Amino acid sequence: MNDRDHSLRLLPAGIDTYSHPVVYMHADCHVCQAEGFQALTRVRIDCGKKWVIATLNVVTGGDWLSTDAAALSNAAWDALQPAEEAWGQFSHPDPPAAASIIRAKVYGESLSEGQFGTIMKDALARRLSDLDLAAFVTACAGGGLDIAENIGLTRAMQAAGETLDWGDRLVLDKHCVGGLPGNRTTPIVVAIVTAAGHLIPKISSRAITSPAGTADTMEVMTPVALDIPAMRRVVETHGGCVVWGGGLQLSPVDDLLIRIERPLDFDSDGQLVASVLSKKAAAGAKRVVIDIPVGPTAKVRSQAAAAALSSRLEAVSVAIGLELTIQISDGSQPVGQGIGPALEAIDILKVLRCAPGAPADLRDRALTLARLLLDMGGGAGVGLNKAKDLLDSGAAERSFMEICEAQGGFSEPKVAPHRIMIVASRSGIITAIDNRRIARVAKLAGAPQRARAGVLLLTHSGDWVQRGDPLFEIHAETPGELDYARAYAASQPAMFRIEEPT
Amino acid sequence: MNDRDHSLRLLPAGIDTYSHPVVYMHADCHVCQAEGFQALTRVRIDCGKKWVIATLNVVTGGDWLSTDAAALSNAAWDALQPAEEAWGQFSHPDPPAAASIIRAKVYGESLSEGQFGTIMKDALARRLSDLDLAAFVTACAGGGLDIAENIGLTRAMQAAGETLDWGDRLVLDKHCVGGLPGNRTTPIVVAIVTAAGHLIPKISSRAITSPAGTADTMEVMTPVALDIPAMRRVVETHGGCVVWGGGLQLSPVDDLLIRIERPLDFDSDGQLVASVLSKKAAAGAKRVVIDIPVGPTAKVRSQAAAAALSSRLEAVSVAIGLELTIQISDGSQPVGQGIGPALEAIDILKVLRCAPGAPADLRDRALTLARLLLDMGGGAGVGLNKAKDLLDSGAAERSFMEICEAQGGFSEPKVAPHRIMIVASRSGIITAIDNRRIARVAKLAGAPQRARAGVLLLTHSGDWVQRGDPLFEIHAETPGELDYARAYAASQPAMFRIEEPT
Repeated sequence: MNDRDHSLRLLPAGIDTYSHPVVYMHADCHVCQAEGFQALTRVRIDCGKKWVIATLNVVTGGDWLSTDAAALSNAAWDALQPAEEAWGQFSHPDPPAAASIIRAKVYGESLSEGQFGTIMKDALARRLSDLDLAAFVTACAGGGLDIAENIGLTRAMQAAGETLDWGDRLVLDKHCVGGLPGNRTTPIVVAIVTAAGHLIPKISSRAITSPAGTADTMEVMTPVALDIPAMRRVVETHGGCVVWGGGLQLSPVDDLLIRIERPLDFDSDGQLVASVLSKKAAAGAKRVVIDIPVGPTAKVRSQAAAAALSSRLEAVSVAIGLELTIQISDGSQPVGQGIGPALEAIDILKVLRCAPGAPADLRDRALTLARLLLDMGGGAGVGLNKAKDLLDSGAAERSFMEICEAQGGFSEPKVAPHRIMIVASRSGIITAIDNRRIARVAKLAGAPQRARAGVLLLTHSGDWVQRGDPLFEIHAETPGELDYARAYAASQPAMFRIEEPT
Repeated sequence: MNDRDHSLRLLPAGIDTYSHPVVYMHADCHVCQAEGFQALTRVRIDCGKKWVIATLNVVTGGDWLSTDAAALSNAAWDALQPAEEAWGQFSHPDPPAAASIIRAKVYGESLSEGQFGTIMKDALARRLSDLDLAAFVTACAGGGLDIAENIGLTRAMQAAGETLDWGDRLVLDKHCVGGLPGNRTTPIVVAIVTAAGHLIPKISSRAITSPAGTADTMEVMTPVALDIPAMRRVVETHGGCVVWGGGLQLSPVDDLLIRIERPLDFDSDGQLVASVLSKKAAAGAKRVVIDIPVGPTAKVRSQAAAAALSSRLEAVSVAIGLELTIQISDGSQPVGQGIGPALEAIDILKVLRCAPGAPADLRDRALTLARLLLDMGGGAGVGLNKAKDLLDSGAAERSFMEICEAQGGFSEPKVAPHRIMIVASRSGIITAIDNRRIARVAKLAGAPQRARAGVLLLTHSGDWVQRGDPLFEIHAETPGELDYARAYAASQPAMFRIEEPT
C-alpha cells in the first residue's frame, strides 16, 4: 500500500471559516475518488508530525485548485503549518471519543466532569465538527444541564486552559451579564478598587454581537492585547489591569462554544454560568461581583429569569470555591451617553475626572459595584463612602492613568468626523428606549470595528421632549456608514417610545 | 442610502458544500466592513427577484477573489442563478420563523404539525443554517419526539413535497431498515409482486454510508433516474418499477436532514420513522412491509430496540393511514455473496433465473417479504406458495426484465478486472462476520462509485474452513483501490471470527 496514493500537495485557501478547519479538494482528485470522500466528510490530514481533522468541501469548478492539491482554510493551515511544497496524507479519522459522549448527552444521560473534559479536549484539538458542537450546545440548552453537570462543565472548561496563580492574595473580579449598551463600568470599578489597594486583574472580551466590548473601549485609551507575563507586571505594580482575554488561553474552549451559540441564539443559563465562572476561576479570582441588568430589551428580561440565573451562579460558585455577590440592576435603557468604543471611553473619563457633564447613571452604577467589591475585600459597610472618596478625590483617576501607562501608554479618545442628529418626531415623555435597536444603529455606523463610530445618547427614559428636540447623534468615520445607520434609524420610529401625557 | 453600496459582483466559487449555501467574501470588501459581517454570519443575497440566505466564509488571502466580488458555493449559485456580470445586494436577513420554533423545541416544548411544517418550509428554502438543522435534529433525537410529534413531523415532511396519486388502487411497498451488506431483496420482491398483478411503485435511494443502495445496484442493470411521468408510464404498464427517489421531490426535506444526521451518527427512532413513512406516504403506498434485520453489527442491535422501533412505526402508520406488516429478521451477517452494486446485481439475477449457484439466503428473504406483501394484497395465507411459484416458474424474471426494458433497457452486470482472494489465517468454524468492516472493505475497493467494485463473500457464519481456504474475494476496477482494500482487510483479522471447536 503506497501512502503517496492518498497524499496531495497542501496549499493555503486563504479562507476564514471561523476556526473550523475546512479542506477543499477537487471532485476529480484521486483521494476523493478512492476514499469515497463527499462534501462534509470529516477528513484526517497528516503532515509531518502534525495532523488535523477537517471538514471537506468539494471543489467542482473554477481553475484555482488542481486535482493533485488540497487547499486548507486558515484554521486547518494554522494547525498543520505545512512547509512549502509539503504533501499531506489523507485518511478517514477515527471517531473522536467526545462524539459518543455527546451522543450519550443527547440521549439524556448526565455527564461527569471527566466526560466534559474529554469533550473540551477534543473540541480544542479541533476533532469535533461544528455539527458536533451544535449538538452539544443544543443538548446542554433548555435545562439540559443539572447543577452537578453545570459544576462539572465549569471545572472542565477551566481545566482545559491556563489558570493564573496569585498566591495567597485576595483577588477580586467583576462581571456584567450584558445586553445594556454603554454600561461600561469596568474601567471605573478597576480604578476605584485598585486605588483602595485591592487586587483586580480584569480580563475582558471584545464585542461579540454588541457595539463595544470592554476590551474594545479600553483599547481606545491604551493597549489591551497583553500576554500573561506583561499583564502580571502591570498587576503586580498597580494592583489591576483591563486587558483582552482573547490571547491568554484562559478557558479557551469558551470561544469555540460561543461561536456556535451566537448564530443559534440560544440563551442558555447553564452555558452562561459555565462560561463566566470558568473564566473567573481561570483568572485566579476569589471573590466576584456579578451585575445582572434586567429589562425587556436586556439579555435577562424578567426578575424570575434573573432569580433562576442567580441561584445557578451561586450553586456553581460555591462548588468551585468562588465567593459571589450578585447585583440585580435596572436594564431598561442604555447607560451613559456614549455607545461605541470611543464614545464610551469619553464617558468613562468624564466620570473618573468628575467632569461637570459626567453621566450620573454610569457613575452611580460604577460606585455601587465598587462598593460591593470593597465590602467583599475589606469588611461590609465601609465600601460606599470609601468608593465615593476615592473617585471624588481623584485617586481613582490617578490609579487608572497609571494602569494605562503601564499597559503601554494613554491616548485621549477622539470624536468621529461625520455626525448627524436624530430628533424627536413628536412631543411627549420618553417612556422606553429599545436597547437592541439603538445598539444596531451604533453597529451600522461602524462600531466596534471603527472605534469612533457609535451613538451619543442625548435623552433618557423619563425625559420630556418637544418635536424636533435632539434624541441622539450618530457618529461615523465615513459618510457611507453614517447614511446607512441614519436610514436604519429612520426606519425604526419605535426605538424611542414617546407618549403624550394623558 | 445607495443600494449599490451593499452590492458585489457575483461569481461561481465552484465549491460543493453539500447543499448548504455559502458565500465567500473578501475580508477587505466594503460590504463586510460596513455591515460588520464576520465568518459564519448569515447573509441575505438578493439578485433580481431571487434571493438566498448563505453562510459567510471570509477570504483573507490568495488572489482568486477581488474585493468587489462575492463567490457563491454551488448551492447558493443554483438558488440565485445569476446572469453573467450580475450584482447581488447584501443585507442582514430577518431571522427565519423556524428558528424560534427550533428554540422552543430545544427548550422542551412539544411542537405541532404546523410548527414542523414551518421548519420544513424554511429548511427547503435554505433559510436555516447547518447549525440550525443540527440543533433541530439534536432536539428530536434521544426520545425528544413523542408519538404525537412524530406523527406531526411525518405529515409535515410528506406535505413539504409531492405526493403520488394512484387513484383507488391498492399500492404496496416495502422498506428495509438497513445495515446488512448484500441484503438486496427489493428487485426480487418487486418482480414477484408485479408478476402477481399487484402495484408496487418502488422508489429507492443511493448508498449514503453503505457500499451500495438499491438504486446503485439497480442502475447496473437499467436506468433508474426517471422523472415522475416516466416512472408512472412504467408502473401503469408493468405494475412496478425500481427507480431512484433523489430527483422526485418526494419528502425532499429528508435529504437535508439526513446530510446532518449522517455525520452526527445519531440513530434516532423518531427521525427514522418520519423519514421512512413520509416517503412511503408520498409515494402513494397503502400497505407496506418493513424488514428490520437485528444483529450486533446491524443498524438495529437488539430485539428490545427492534420492538421499540416497531411500536413507533405502527403508531405513526395508523395515524397517517398506512397499513404495516413488520418483519424482524436475522441481521447477524451479510446476505448473499455480492457486496457492491454489480456483485449484488449478479446475485439478484441468479435468484430470478433460479440459477444453481443462487444464494439461498437472499432467495429466502425475498420470498418471505414477497409472501407478506401478497398476503397484504390478496388475503392471508396464500402468499408463500404463490411467491415460490412465481419465482420458480420464471414469471418473476419475465416481469423484472419487462420493467428493466420499460425503464430504458437491460444490461448484464460485468465482473471487475482486478481481484484478489483473502484466505483464512487459521482453521475452525466461522462464528461471526462483522457487517460494518466487510462493508468498509467493499467501499475502500471503490463501491458504490465504481459499480463493479466490492466483495464477493465465499463463506458464511457456521461454515468450517481450513487455514488457507478462501473467505472472500475483493473486486476493484483499479489496482490502487484493490491494494488499498486489501491492506485494510489485512489489518482487520477480527472481521471474521474463526473459532476452533472445543
